[in-house]
Amino acid sequence: MSRAAQPPTAKTPCKADVDYFFFFFYFADLLPAKNGEEQTMQFLLEVVEILTNYIRKTFDRSTKVLDFHHPHQLLEGMEGFNLELSDQPESLEQILVDCRDTLKYGVRTGHPRFFNQLSTGLDIVGLAGEWLTSTANTNMFTYEIAPVFVLMEQLTLKKMREIVGWPDGEGDGIFSPGGAISNMYSVMIARYKFFPEVKTKGMAAAPRLILFTSEHSHYSIKKASAALGFGTENLILLKTDERFAFISLFSVPPLQGFVPLFVNATAGTTVYGAFDPINEIADICEKYNIWLHVDGAWGGGLLMSRKHRHKLSGVERANSVTWNPHKMMGVPLQCSAILVRERGLLQGCNSMCAGYLFQPDKQYDVTYDTGDKAIQCGRHVDIFKFWLMWKAKGTVGFEQHIDKCLDLSAYLYNKIKNREGYEMVFQGEHTNVCFWYIPPSLRGLPDGAERRERLHKVAPKIKAMMMESGTTMVGYQPQGEKVNFFRMVISNPAATRSDIDFLIDEIERLGNDL
Amino acid sequence: MSRAAQPPTAKTPCKADVDYFFFFFYFADLLPAKNGEEQTMQFLLEVVEILTNYIRKTFDRSTKVLDFHHPHQLLEGMEGFNLELSDQPESLEQILVDCRDTLKYGVRTGHPRFFNQLSTGLDIVGLAGEWLTSTANTNMFTYEIAPVFVLMEQLTLKKMREIVGWPDGEGDGIFSPGGAISNMYSVMIARYKFFPEVKTKGMAAAPRLILFTSEHSHYSIKKASAALGFGTENLILLKTDERFAFISLFSVPPLQGFVPLFVNATAGTTVYGAFDPINEIADICEKYNIWLHVDGAWGGGLLMSRKHRHKLSGVERANSVTWNPHKMMGVPLQCSAILVRERGLLQGCNSMCAGYLFQPDKQYDVTYDTGDKAIQCGRHVDIFKFWLMWKAKGTVGFEQHIDKCLDLSAYLYNKIKNREGYEMVFQGEHTNVCFWYIPPSLRGLPDGAERRERLHKVAPKIKAMMMESGTTMVGYQPQGEKVNFFRMVISNPAATRSDIDFLIDEIERLGNDL
Repeated sequence: MSRAAQPPTAKTPCKADVDYFFFFFYFADLLPAKNGEEQTMQFLLEVVEILTNYIRKTFDRSTKVLDFHHPHQLLEGMEGFNLELSDQPESLEQILVDCRDTLKYGVRTGHPRFFNQLSTGLDIVGLAGEWLTSTANTNMFTYEIAPVFVLMEQLTLKKMREIVGWPDGEGDGIFSPGGAISNMYSVMIARYKFFPEVKTKGMAAAPRLILFTSEHSHYSIKKASAALGFGTENLILLKTDERFAFISLFSVPPLQGFVPLFVNATAGTTVYGAFDPINEIADICEKYNIWLHVDGAWGGGLLMSRKHRHKLSGVERANSVTWNPHKMMGVPLQCSAILVRERGLLQGCNSMCAGYLFQPDKQYDVTYDTGDKAIQCGRHVDIFKFWLMWKAKGTVGFEQHIDKCLDLSAYLYNKIKNREGYEMVFQGEHTNVCFWYIPPSLRGLPDGAERRERLHKVAPKIKAMMMESGTTMVGYQPQGEKVNFFRMVISNPAATRSDIDFLIDEIERLGNDL
Repeated sequence: MSRAAQPPTAKTPCKADVDYFFFFFYFADLLPAKNGEEQTMQFLLEVVEILTNYIRKTFDRSTKVLDFHHPHQLLEGMEGFNLELSDQPESLEQILVDCRDTLKYGVRTGHPRFFNQLSTGLDIVGLAGEWLTSTANTNMFTYEIAPVFVLMEQLTLKKMREIVGWPDGEGDGIFSPGGAISNMYSVMIARYKFFPEVKTKGMAAAPRLILFTSEHSHYSIKKASAALGFGTENLILLKTDERFAFISLFSVPPLQGFVPLFVNATAGTTVYGAFDPINEIADICEKYNIWLHVDGAWGGGLLMSRKHRHKLSGVERANSVTWNPHKMMGVPLQCSAILVRERGLLQGCNSMCAGYLFQPDKQYDVTYDTGDKAIQCGRHVDIFKFWLMWKAKGTVGFEQHIDKCLDLSAYLYNKIKNREGYEMVFQGEHTNVCFWYIPPSLRGLPDGAERRERLHKVAPKIKAMMMESGTTMVGYQPQGEKVNFFRMVISNPAATRSDIDFLIDEIERLGNDL
């Protein structure tokens, strides 16, 4: 497969060499090919040059956030970028071109003006951690093949439990592939705690079990109730008050023949950034012996801030906590932890003791083989980037980041709350700021069906224009009776007040004539 | 936090500069810090130098596979390597040292003599793909923020379905965080297909459902039956014949009042590498209208080989297939696909229509927003490295890799099957070779309790010595009545016959005096 070509002999070829070099080399010329070391190193350095150029531009505000194309355009192929897979290998030059094009037509989630999701930003130390993780290319199931990472996971989880407030950081936990899976773990463990026989006998062995969460909680609680065999109708969505927090579990009609098993309190709702009153909920859970889970996927990061952690007051009374460092703490995707107060439940709930992985007669202390606690078998190493960032920033560095994001969010709120053309939907206690932009043409209209209908179309139109022009990105959505509004969230460490100003200017520029 | 220091002005500092450079720089000096570009680029290049040195050594057989330390040793701290997290930031120099040490005390899963798991090797193009993926740092839930990756996933899944043999590659699928989760999807979808009301009403809405799998299948089927509310007792472990393949579903006692829902046929069992007879099982599943899942996590890769794909004959009759490119195809962890023959089931089973992500009034074709099919919300980009490898190797490149690994496995089998001191446990149709090494001291002993007891300790002792000396790694385990044996598996593209010879020499060197 390899074509005849002489690699340059110098260790680091000059740019001119590189320009033609990879036309003549193929996958089969790279390591483990005999004498493949030179090409391999040059290929990787060329990739790194593509990546570092991308990073440089991502932080440069004159770069677009995205270069939007419709699906059919990308599928038809853009000058030299063809997504189709073929039987025969492509040259390494084409592979490098494909890398460049993949980045070119993607979205720069690290750009200072990317505000579209809860996870934004590009943390340089976290990124270095990911590069190392993929180079190590190992698996979390045993100490045997991931000794350092397994220990880092244990230490970091303990630190997180200390910050939650559990005595001496006691308890258990695991990093999972995202907050939805962490929340799913919480429901599984609650069921195992109260009805362990379900593991062997199925849901038929338990009475009808009821789960509770607020109507504003994340949809993953609903996904979990469907997947785990509870059924979404047995998940009760509790009404909230004007702060979008639980009113009370007592607002539920009396339960007859049902057993309340699990309550999810959200610390930082996805849309509004609201915090349920954990202490009040914990009082009820303790009284009725119900599992209390706190979904802090989005809000958990605030625990790192002395100024803001009171918003999760009572979290130490939870039986389990979801906390995603890949959201508010800026860790690269994916990094989500499920923390459990009682040790042993995770293992009891999920272990199947596979002989080929978890041999009891290994030469080391096999209590460090933690893989059987997971619902996964192989498990990606999500810990290293987070551990490395913690080393590099210190606890104080995370605190500064979080305080800064919340300050920026307050800046945005104060900027628009009385500004002409804006109506506020809600100001959460997190960085979420939800608002309507009212174009001049709608400002005189009385409230009513016509205004609502027209207002509903404003945010999608502005968003579409934003994406076409590539200048910034922010989310929008309707919610219940409320027509489409913008949901601004700030977790990007690169964002500044000038970027907030830019966003508002851009909304007004694009929306003025609607 | 940043200390006073002048960064060198040259774009690429000479080595001497680098040697002291990072002592004076901290996390807070990196981008997005003002004027942080120089330090950022230099820091990343320094990380890359650490990684490329590691890669170079990994492929060098004179390097150890691992430098083993017990958990307590690493926890106590090794000269300058301290796992504890602190409140204050460390210098970037310390961060670089931590990166070096993390690799130093880890396991080189890409080393030509690492045979310990089903996933081995370090594919250079796949690695480049992972570096790019983490630099792009985005999320698979919507086309909006992952346009290129979403399309790559769709095209690649279609190609995989074509290879499975479904007409025109029709059907559905998703990349999930590992084979265990892919298998869990298959059980969920089967339940949704036959009892869709379970999604809303829970398991109480269905009759007692029974799942079938062989006693040698992967433990994730059992994990799924526990997690999803079936209960492990409702998973029937079928006996197998001497080929460790299903005998027949008819070996099960008559089922009264139970509904058989799901059969898992394994294509490549974890320990023996055995293949269940898919066609025979499909006949029964079709007759009784039972969902047929093929767990090809390990064996699916053989579909890429014209020589070996007959081992999965009948796979096109399955309703769903698990296939992990991160095992036999050498893709870096994690990369696992669940393929589904009937379109719409994944979406129907899992969708919850979250308004903040899946707005119907976007400007592009929102059928490309595929995130609601997943049980996850955020989902890591697992596709790019695989797509890039496919481009670089072509379909033929995967075929060559697989054929080579199976040839090597035959070489090992033939080498030891009649060799003094070896007894074969089983030769699968995959690259698994399971065998006992009998030290000279045991060779004269008659079969019986004493021999069994002593033989049981041989593999763990040899393995422990291998790990202490760091020369190679291979798995061992007991199985049923069989005492500890070695399970050799070959998926590492770097392995050659000389590495197989080395392994056997090493087993004999370490085991000779036991």
